[in-house]
Amino acid sequence: MLDIKCIILPFIVLAIINSNETNCEILRDAKDLAHLVPYPQQIVSYATQLTIDSNNFKFVTKTKQKCDLLDDAIKRYRKLAFINGCYNLHNENKSPFESIELNPNEDYLTNITIEVKGDCVDQWPHLHMDEMYTLRIDTQDFPKQAFLFANTIWGALRGLETFSQLIQHKSDNTFAINSTFIVDFPRFTYRGVLIDTSRHFLPIHVIHENLEAMSYYKMNVLHWHIVDDQSFPYVSQEFPELSSKGSYNPKTHVYSAEDIKNVIEFARYRGIRVIVEFDTPSHCLSWGKGYPHLLTQCYSGDKPNGQLGAMNPSRNTTFEFLNSLFKEIANRFPDQYIHIGGDEVNTTCWKSNPEIQLFMKDLGISGEYDKLEEYFFKRLIKNISGLNKSWIVWQEVFDRNISIPNNTIVNVWKQNFNTELYELTKLDYEVILSSCWYLNKISYGYDWFQYYTCDPQGFNGTDHQNSLVLGGQASMWGEWVDASNFMTRTWPRAMSVAERLWSPKSLSNATEAQYRFVPNRCRMLERGLRLQPVVEPKEYKFGFCRCDSDV
Amino acid sequence: MLDIKCIILPFIVLAIINSNETNCEILRDAKDLAHLVPYPQQIVSYATQLTIDSNNFKFVTKTKQKCDLLDDAIKRYRKLAFINGCYNLHNENKSPFESIELNPNEDYLTNITIEVKGDCVDQWPHLHMDEMYTLRIDTQDFPKQAFLFANTIWGALRGLETFSQLIQHKSDNTFAINSTFIVDFPRFTYRGVLIDTSRHFLPIHVIHENLEAMSYYKMNVLHWHIVDDQSFPYVSQEFPELSSKGSYNPKTHVYSAEDIKNVIEFARYRGIRVIVEFDTPSHCLSWGKGYPHLLTQCYSGDKPNGQLGAMNPSRNTTFEFLNSLFKEIANRFPDQYIHIGGDEVNTTCWKSNPEIQLFMKDLGISGEYDKLEEYFFKRLIKNISGLNKSWIVWQEVFDRNISIPNNTIVNVWKQNFNTELYELTKLDYEVILSSCWYLNKISYGYDWFQYYTCDPQGFNGTDHQNSLVLGGQASMWGEWVDASNFMTRTWPRAMSVAERLWSPKSLSNATEAQYRFVPNRCRMLERGLRLQPVVEPKEYKFGFCRCDSDV
Repeated sequence: MLDIKCIILPFIVLAIINSNETNCEILRDAKDLAHLVPYPQQIVSYATQLTIDSNNFKFVTKTKQKCDLLDDAIKRYRKLAFINGCYNLHNENKSPFESIELNPNEDYLTNITIEVKGDCVDQWPHLHMDEMYTLRIDTQDFPKQAFLFANTIWGALRGLETFSQLIQHKSDNTFAINSTFIVDFPRFTYRGVLIDTSRHFLPIHVIHENLEAMSYYKMNVLHWHIVDDQSFPYVSQEFPELSSKGSYNPKTHVYSAEDIKNVIEFARYRGIRVIVEFDTPSHCLSWGKGYPHLLTQCYSGDKPNGQLGAMNPSRNTTFEFLNSLFKEIANRFPDQYIHIGGDEVNTTCWKSNPEIQLFMKDLGISGEYDKLEEYFFKRLIKNISGLNKSWIVWQEVFDRNISIPNNTIVNVWKQNFNTELYELTKLDYEVILSSCWYLNKISYGYDWFQYYTCDPQGFNGTDHQNSLVLGGQASMWGEWVDASNFMTRTWPRAMSVAERLWSPKSLSNATEAQYRFVPNRCRMLERGLRLQPVVEPKEYKFGFCRCDSDV
Repeated sequence: MLDIKCIILPFIVLAIINSNETNCEILRDAKDLAHLVPYPQQIVSYATQLTIDSNNFKFVTKTKQKCDLLDDAIKRYRKLAFINGCYNLHNENKSPFESIELNPNEDYLTNITIEVKGDCVDQWPHLHMDEMYTLRIDTQDFPKQAFLFANTIWGALRGLETFSQLIQHKSDNTFAINSTFIVDFPRFTYRGVLIDTSRHFLPIHVIHENLEAMSYYKMNVLHWHIVDDQSFPYVSQEFPELSSKGSYNPKTHVYSAEDIKNVIEFARYRGIRVIVEFDTPSHCLSWGKGYPHLLTQCYSGDKPNGQLGAMNPSRNTTFEFLNSLFKEIANRFPDQYIHIGGDEVNTTCWKSNPEIQLFMKDLGISGEYDKLEEYFFKRLIKNISGLNKSWIVWQEVFDRNISIPNNTIVNVWKQNFNTELYELTKLDYEVILSSCWYLNKISYGYDWFQYYTCDPQGFNGTDHQNSLVLGGQASMWGEWVDASNFMTRTWPRAMSVAERLWSPKSLSNATEAQYRFVPNRCRMLERGLRLQPVVEPKEYKFGFCRCDSDV
């Protein structure tokens, strides 16, 4: 009798065959599969393999227009898919992989056709971009072929990553791939990594390396917390003394307009948005190095004590400054969203300063510092809105009962986040979750298990509330990381967050996931990424990577 | 009136002037000094600076014989002392340092004379080696000169390191050094770093990099925990299947005789001993991959269950094997000491195995597993002793009331270490402390503060007991580290241990130490070491390094 599950009409019947019964050598055990991370929404994989000669493999494109983004991706993935030796950072030679017993199957896969339905010119990754793709590697086709289909270039990029992770090295330039059918799309549209370049500076090469890692894990937002109290590395044309006086070193520890353009373009080519954060009105001490009048003078008794506090909202000049600066920022960062901060506003200086007191009295809000903050954000948001940009704020802005427009996205970062998410979504705010993914807070052992099991929709909300959860992000705050340890500390721990935000909610068993994470980490070492071990090797030979001595 | 403290007879009067009163510009504040780590026993430094033209600076040697060790060290320190740009791992170019305002002082230091009193041929670092040195950079000499004196080559190496850390870059090839007088020697003779190459393999280039770091911090023992349950990377000529079957990969993840020779020689040139550990009778599962008969078969009921346990002490063949292996090991590792393990002996399999039961009955020790362990160690130690080697064991061997010879060195690693140290030294055992320095157990923030304040003589013993504390070691067990993160995780945290073991006991304020540790870490980044941040930057520009973007 014909087994319906073996019929190769995957794009139609995948929903049907996506069950646990199998009798035609369907591989569905995570250990047997190609160690995909993040795991696809729907996948069927067969034991049948096709051989690939990497020297004679073609990436064929079907697009409406010439597509630079796709051409560039193919160039990258030709390398990433067909790795045949350990990348050696120290002598830059590759030590070739040992041969693995070849599959007797003589069937060759000679090309993959990549079809993108939509436009390809001037595309920018954005909040609700379509990242869906279907991938079919079919041993029953004549000739054998692979097919990647996507509505958008972004889907094609995600599919290429999956395709590259499916490929296994056999010997020299010979590779293999299992007959596989995938329909895939992200569970959440916002899947970010936060970097903090103020506590410690991160050089461009590290930001690029991080973007590469993000693209390998289908993450799509770089949340760039670019300035803070400690330093101001952003070079402003309008206000050059922000960085010349506020950076750690105005020659070597700054981001020029050109640097930023490079980062944004590097990210765009990988389907990653760059959302910059200029945190206000606190966390701004470095702004005061060049422009002290922006900040509130702190008083001891009736005299300034030399300390500076949060921005001074009593002066029009503060807002004029912010207007000009954000106009420049809006031009440099093409994404629709700007993160304007709003966390941990310290009102101590406001309370001590007579100018602020007088101003609050005039406004009729004496003693109501939340109202003063509201005044600040109303003016700032009006300004951002006037630049045709949208904005994200940290949760305190909402927590302090500040009236903010309903189209504000709220970034939840504190503990007790389920209650916060519930309340925010009940009031119809869109939310992004950071709370459970502070990867900078290291601890010994399997800390990533807890990242893996944290769910952004774990707050028992309605379907509508759930739909307002845009996603979340792994944060690597910069207090204890710089170029020396950023990559090894962030990766592969952020894999957990990537999978949580992309893959089905039901995939929530970290103990099982480790059997994919280990070989996946090995694959990434082979690509030259610096990522630390993901498990403690207990079982014999599990946890070691063939390239871990070449990092 | 003549101020006695300003008379430049430092080697005579250093004891006198080592007080807190100063009125001749003596610099004694850690912040003003050259950020030396570990801090010297006795130091006086003056504000007066001498200029150095690195192109015309000479290292003059006065030795009894031609001294390869010193010549090689001078080659290294010529580079390490005169760094004038950030080392860039990525393009291997140096980005030159910015000039710092030059001292108007036109006095030049043109050479340093290094005198080694003792022999220089065939020297090996050893347990009680003399590492004392005196260093004098004297602005009142004519011509200006620097003088380094040591009894042994080891003292000279330590002094060269200090000399190199005293040198400050000014511009291009111009450097400066303060008039400085140092008498220095280690508080403890054993100052180690433990590496574990079984849980994860560490390639030779990482071991070398770690040895370099150790030499920068005057550490003198590499405790090489070379094999364990997880893998057996040591290539034995006598028993090749130990590594061919027990390593992660017998081609890429092993240490050949040649590799080991290289490590030992690399270490010797830096005054570092290599003490290898072959842990017995537990932690030996990887031995059983090639030689299963060494290990005890575990039984379930009356049948072997396929599991293997600790070594099987009931068979003569076990000891014949160990005799042959340790003979080879004793030849490959020239240090007087071998670490023979003895921790966490798991007796479960012994208890289940009828062969062991019978053997114990014959010996008249039925049910007394400590006695069986004693039997094992007595035979093993007799063997080691016959090879004219000495031995170190983990504390459990003592804890289990096993009678061990008094010349055994005991390595304390468990908590409650003060009691353990007290009891061991009361019984006249020499001890090494590991307990408070498990650097692999990471946590967030200033974890090194606790390493810094842990004292190996904090157990309230007599002077004699204190004298039996040989030192201690920082341990980086390999469960979660491999080539990707070993260096950044070990360093600079192990600096704390290095300073505790070298510098005066009274120097115990971590908050003050950080003002030396930060610039010292910066100096090490300039040397190309991969070490992570040592503080959280809070104060403006404190915590950042000029080369931290070039790692």
